Amino acid sequence: MNIPIVSIVGRSNTGKTTLVEKLVAELTRRGRRVATIKHNLHGFDIDHEGKDSFRHKQAGAVMTVIASAARVALVKDIEGDMTIDEIAARFIDDADIIITEGYKGNDKAKIEVHRREAYPDLLCGAGDNLLAVATDTRLSIDVPQYDINDAPGLCDLIEREALAATRGPAVTLTVDGAVVPLKPFVQAMLANGIRGMVSGLKECGDARELRIAISARAPEER
Amino acid sequence: MNIPIVSIVGRSNTGKTTLVEKLVAELTRRGRRVATIKHNLHGFDIDHEGKDSFRHKQAGAVMTVIASAARVALVKDIEGDMTIDEIAARFIDDADIIITEGYKGNDKAKIEVHRREAYPDLLCGAGDNLLAVATDTRLSIDVPQYDINDAPGLCDLIEREALAATRGPAVTLTVDGAVVPLKPFVQAMLANGIRGMVSGLKECGDARELRIAISARAPEER
Repeated sequence: MNIPIVSIVGRSNTGKTTLVEKLVAELTRRGRRVATIKHNLHGFDIDHEGKDSFRHKQAGAVMTVIASAARVALVKDIEGDMTIDEIAARFIDDADIIITEGYKGNDKAKIEVHRREAYPDLLCGAGDNLLAVATDTRLSIDVPQYDINDAPGLCDLIEREALAATRGPAVTLTVDGAVVPLKPFVQAMLANGIRGMVSGLKECGDARELRIAISARAPEER
Repeated sequence: MNIPIVSIVGRSNTGKTTLVEKLVAELTRRGRRVATIKHNLHGFDIDHEGKDSFRHKQAGAVMTVIASAARVALVKDIEGDMTIDEIAARFIDDADIIITEGYKGNDKAKIEVHRREAYPDLLCGAGDNLLAVATDTRLSIDVPQYDINDAPGLCDLIEREALAATRGPAVTLTVDGAVVPLKPFVQAMLANGIRGMVSGLKECGDARELRIAISARAPEER
């Protein structure tokens, strides 16, 4: 879906969640539709013992969706970490930008949160695609530095760097759960071919977004 | 994705959630991968004030994903109820069967939970595609009746009726969030055409499941 992604990274207890909250609030105030992904190394409980929402999941369902007219929530078992691209392709649509908390090991644009008291040095190094550092001190580094509370300044940067890079490929192909990288001409071939195939169908004429899922027919018995 | 769907419906306080739990546990014990959808008319809070998991969402994100190596959770704002088909197309994969709690107003196969003390009469009528009633009494109706605690018997029925109906169309097309009904020959054309287009790509040769998302390129500015 080619939604631009900026990751907020940093060591423990530097205030990553707090900064993400501020950036989400500021970008939302500016009219951006923000999706977020939080990486939780240690797992998490989505619900408490005895609470109603996820009783289906606790009974053994591999995936449970709860839906009201205003909100959908989902919990799904997975086997091993999904990449940001896999999560974005599978779960995220209808957003202008994705802010992640965590996810250092990839080539996405990053802002590192730094607090002198927590750790003197940075987590990111050369090759980490570091856009900026949000810090409560001043570091001798060759990367733009912002005050750790300067959400407006950081959002200016995010809008300039990330949203400006939005133009580009617009086709995502997932095969058995894994995202397949596609060269631009392959994307164009798929997009044009498939748009052509469905153009005669009702409601498909000027679709903004098409999603197609093709599965092998279910076997008689597993 | 053409995953078979059975809805557990019934009036308030008849024990729908309890029966769904029993069915999920029994089907899981039989080796089925069960996904569930719970319809919550009155909305729900996914998280409590001050708890960490969904601080991003509370800060204004339209969608938040939390991911660990074992589990993914997601909360998303929507505008108006999604149908079961829309939820299944958008969120559910990798399951053998979908059990829903609620969702009476559609043509899916249904099992109604009935308790004499709660209400004397049934919620479902003719045309509701009622497979069976799970009840603590005996009703004069022309539909199979099971004891309200007979999860094995009901699962036999579910496997017989619903899983047997799995063979069939296997292509889902979603256009701007809405599922477009496809005739079998259109499904075959899309499946064959798209499988052909991607067959030369790495990892796509014998894919079990393909998902493709095509979006309009992002405009310069909204």
